[in-house]
Amino acid sequence: MTPHYAVIMAGGSGTRFWPASRRNRPKQLLSFGGAEVSLLEATVRRILPLVPAERIIVVTAERLLVDTKESLRTVPGVRVMAEPAPRNTAPCVGWAASVISDEAPDATVMVLPSDHAIGDEPSFLEAIGIAMASATSGSITTIGIVPTRPETGYGYIELPRPAEAKIAMPVSRFVEKPNLETAKQFLIGGKHLWNAGMFFFRASDMLTAIASHLPALATGLETMREARQAGNEAESVTRIFPTLPSISLDHGVLEKQAGLAVVPGDFGWNDVGSWQSAWELADKDEHHNSLPPGTVSVDARGNLVVQSTGSQTPKLIALVGVHDLCVVETEDAILIIPKDRAQDVRSVIEHIEKSGRDELL
Amino acid sequence: MTPHYAVIMAGGSGTRFWPASRRNRPKQLLSFGGAEVSLLEATVRRILPLVPAERIIVVTAERLLVDTKESLRTVPGVRVMAEPAPRNTAPCVGWAASVISDEAPDATVMVLPSDHAIGDEPSFLEAIGIAMASATSGSITTIGIVPTRPETGYGYIELPRPAEAKIAMPVSRFVEKPNLETAKQFLIGGKHLWNAGMFFFRASDMLTAIASHLPALATGLETMREARQAGNEAESVTRIFPTLPSISLDHGVLEKQAGLAVVPGDFGWNDVGSWQSAWELADKDEHHNSLPPGTVSVDARGNLVVQSTGSQTPKLIALVGVHDLCVVETEDAILIIPKDRAQDVRSVIEHIEKSGRDELL
Repeated sequence: MTPHYAVIMAGGSGTRFWPASRRNRPKQLLSFGGAEVSLLEATVRRILPLVPAERIIVVTAERLLVDTKESLRTVPGVRVMAEPAPRNTAPCVGWAASVISDEAPDATVMVLPSDHAIGDEPSFLEAIGIAMASATSGSITTIGIVPTRPETGYGYIELPRPAEAKIAMPVSRFVEKPNLETAKQFLIGGKHLWNAGMFFFRASDMLTAIASHLPALATGLETMREARQAGNEAESVTRIFPTLPSISLDHGVLEKQAGLAVVPGDFGWNDVGSWQSAWELADKDEHHNSLPPGTVSVDARGNLVVQSTGSQTPKLIALVGVHDLCVVETEDAILIIPKDRAQDVRSVIEHIEKSGRDELL
Repeated sequence: MTPHYAVIMAGGSGTRFWPASRRNRPKQLLSFGGAEVSLLEATVRRILPLVPAERIIVVTAERLLVDTKESLRTVPGVRVMAEPAPRNTAPCVGWAASVISDEAPDATVMVLPSDHAIGDEPSFLEAIGIAMASATSGSITTIGIVPTRPETGYGYIELPRPAEAKIAMPVSRFVEKPNLETAKQFLIGGKHLWNAGMFFFRASDMLTAIASHLPALATGLETMREARQAGNEAESVTRIFPTLPSISLDHGVLEKQAGLAVVPGDFGWNDVGSWQSAWELADKDEHHNSLPPGTVSVDARGNLVVQSTGSQTPKLIALVGVHDLCVVETEDAILIIPKDRAQDVRSVIEHIEKSGRDELL
């Protein structure tokens, strides 16, 4: 049987969970929905039934290396690779595929984001099994999420016919984020799935595809491979990686590649994209509030209160007569924003950047 | 000329400014509207043009004695008397009147609350001058505030004819807090003024009125006076004061007293009754927000943010898309409440009392 590997992409530095997320404490290192473990650790633990820890590779950014390793302390054996500079997903996946193909030329690889939540893990693992089988038979494969709402914030994967469960289907094309009208038609038509950034392939197939569509990347990867085999990997990665073309796997490779397959997935996927999503994932009381113990709540509904104050004693938070708010207390900041404005956290980041208070970013 | 004295009632333990106000840090020891000084210190300083510090007596509660003296550190000479137990205003005023009449039998006294704000100090001092003249001529006198809205939260003073400025008028009667319909009629009719708890009298007249209407109080005051003259005041106050009838000056004396006078006052009076009032008093930006320096505000209007964190560094507060909220951060608590629900802070106090977290009260 072809050995299975997993590559977990964990270099993100999202700002959408400010003030809980920071430059050096991105979303994948936070926990949500009452979980004890970070999204990253949950992602790794979720696939342990399919891939042994020794064949799981987490790719992160150099500045996140220490915290990423710390977050994985309880899952010994997992390898962590650090990118010296962010170059989007194609160089990340290519580098990992190259490392894996040296080690196991016939390996089949799953690439997963580190910062999503999965509600129904058995169904998720089943979909991965189908996708890995499809990949092993030679098709670069993805999992597409069966839409539950006319979402305009995601890219879509189009099928030639309505999605069927538990099979790999051919991909007609990738579709950019649609407008609301189009998204509604997608939802009704049943032929469009959300692109969730999960990819499955034989390492050799991916390297071949990169050589076809991104020759500059292929050349860089080859230089790094030679250095690795000569025992000089670190120096080579530091020198070469930052020069690789900065492009996503979707745009750089997949959209140009024929014969892609997609497995429709329906397993309670949540991209944990904003404080709104965090509220959706959280346990809630009878008034739809998610509140830390001790919070005083009077005639308040639909609120999310998060306290992430490190070694500080969290303050008593009292909510009276407020609805559908997110309130986030950290060691140095308090955010108050309606759930349906959660995307606008980025405006706060912009204000802080302008004011030069970098310690708050 | 009859010597003028002032008695400032500063024993209150309001909870309406929780979490900034606490059992041992009541409203009169807080500052509002960007003031550098507490409401109490502002009250004392405001009347210094009329009364020398040595003839100003602040009456507070024993447990507030240290903090009250500290709040008056910059106004040397002011005397502070401490009640061993709260017995409402009649015993407080009676005790002060008795002490003053020993010292100056012909004194005229003004009694003022310690926790109100005054916008137009010259007009305020002018009204006090008229009220003190009325008191000196033998009428127990009050100042009634010309209403600016149909307020249902205050008691009213009824006049026999519409109010005129700058004269003492006869009082027809005291009226309990009205319903909204009645309050609207009061506002239109012009014959009703807000009872703001300011009283003016000759010390001897007040002691005579107490003897008529509250003989038990008069007896207790007389016992304390004898002890004071014998050099035993402290022991006597500790023993007698807690046994005095607990009743307000309005109910116990004034409502039963004939020949009262009232001076209509219109000088930007604000009872600083809630966080809503605090917002009204505060300096505001072009979006009607009152925010500490450094607060990040995006599409937020009409909000009040107060940070009273003692020696702690205040946290950066970021407001996005919220309107007409009060946000109060202290060392150990964060309150979030709409301005128009500000009275409901008391519900928070009740929750905390039930939960037994007395350190938060």
